Amino acid sequence: MSATVSSDSVAHVEYVLRIADSSLILGHRLSEWCGHGPVLEEDIALTNVALDLIGQARSLYTHAGALEGNGCDEDQFAFTRTESEFRNVTIVELPNGDYGFTIMRNFLFAAFQRELWGALQASAEVPLFEIARKSLTETRYHVQHASDWVIRLGDGTDESHARMQRALDTLWPYTAEFFSPSAIDDAAIGHAIGPAWSTLESGWLSAIRPVLDIATLLIPARTSFLSRGKEGRHSEHFEPLLREMQYLQRTHPNCIW
Amino acid sequence: MSATVSSDSVAHVEYVLRIADSSLILGHRLSEWCGHGPVLEEDIALTNVALDLIGQARSLYTHAGALEGNGCDEDQFAFTRTESEFRNVTIVELPNGDYGFTIMRNFLFAAFQRELWGALQASAEVPLFEIARKSLTETRYHVQHASDWVIRLGDGTDESHARMQRALDTLWPYTAEFFSPSAIDDAAIGHAIGPAWSTLESGWLSAIRPVLDIATLLIPARTSFLSRGKEGRHSEHFEPLLREMQYLQRTHPNCIW
Repeated sequence: MSATVSSDSVAHVEYVLRIADSSLILGHRLSEWCGHGPVLEEDIALTNVALDLIGQARSLYTHAGALEGNGCDEDQFAFTRTESEFRNVTIVELPNGDYGFTIMRNFLFAAFQRELWGALQASAEVPLFEIARKSLTETRYHVQHASDWVIRLGDGTDESHARMQRALDTLWPYTAEFFSPSAIDDAAIGHAIGPAWSTLESGWLSAIRPVLDIATLLIPARTSFLSRGKEGRHSEHFEPLLREMQYLQRTHPNCIW
Repeated sequence: MSATVSSDSVAHVEYVLRIADSSLILGHRLSEWCGHGPVLEEDIALTNVALDLIGQARSLYTHAGALEGNGCDEDQFAFTRTESEFRNVTIVELPNGDYGFTIMRNFLFAAFQRELWGALQASAEVPLFEIARKSLTETRYHVQHASDWVIRLGDGTDESHARMQRALDTLWPYTAEFFSPSAIDDAAIGHAIGPAWSTLESGWLSAIRPVLDIATLLIPARTSFLSRGKEGRHSEHFEPLLREMQYLQRTHPNCIW
């Protein structure tokens, strides 16, 4: 779990961890809604999305452990790494905000995941291809669920519209990180493991634009802002999340108590 | 949603609400583990149990709303009632404690639910029978999951054994409430809606005793302690739970925000 790219093999593991960590951290954020949703039905829907995401992370961690060959299991990846060892994109670690903010993030991220899982259908790496195939089915539902709400709230009352536009304005700059180039991507392409994330941008834009149009929401202009969570450089919101998520394991290492 | 039994019809609704509320409140308590389980697999397992329980409550609230005929929906039952209007047994509202305490409560309560759902298979009320049939399948799994852990931890290390015995000692007095007689039961029997809960005790004991034996745990003697949550008289732990659970709806009534 070295933070530097010392070989293709390390880059390979990092490519997988980056996908896994983004799922885990968003899953953890969404789990914070569990028992606190605005209505029972949504509480259950968001929790189901959280469980899907945590399940994706578990499968990917198991795969990463096999790649590393040092017996690192899913719980070690989730509970024993330090902040700078996590490779999730920054957008997933931001606090939940209100329900609209949570939904807008789910929408933008799930649409990206859908592109990624789709592209990974061409992976030469069978376990990764299989995880992507299963995840694609789940993510299609996540996109659908979030899209319905983006439209309902974006094209809703003045208040709900304003909140959704504000959420989009706040979240938009963080989506640039999905597509920023990296050496990790280059190594993955070299071994036909997966696509460069930068190649996924046009498909993602084509998918989200019609929904945002119907929702009467305006896509902000791109700026030079670029978050760097996938390089292990996280926002100020990440350390408290990690502290809470890893509390039990830090207090009682390798122990059920 | 009157707190007094003014007619058979009110008693009928209360009989349903008592079942629904116990599922909802335990579901809420378990949801507090979401994102905080000792290992990822258990995190997901407990959250799935929580979702099953909240799903049971939703179905029962919808049924109760139909019985009342005043259009009260699942969210109104969950989010707008006051403390004394809730009819859950007290055991489900107790704080989670450690993982062993949570598991022991799940075990004792799920075993009771299994008896109840089974007995409701003979209900003359079709919607209740159907909810019970679906719930029985879920609850069988909950009993299995909790039993496995009760045995693993009870018959485990000295530390885990001591914790499980302590959990059983603390929780045991609250199980008397499952079987205490009530006017609500009498009305339900009169209309072949469901069994008197008191008749479920022997089946419940026969089911839990072998598991506790294998787990090397001793069943405490019965005392005169009797909790009264199903009459709307709750422990000191209930009001904070309700405040948290109903926070969104209290702050923004009937609103998605």
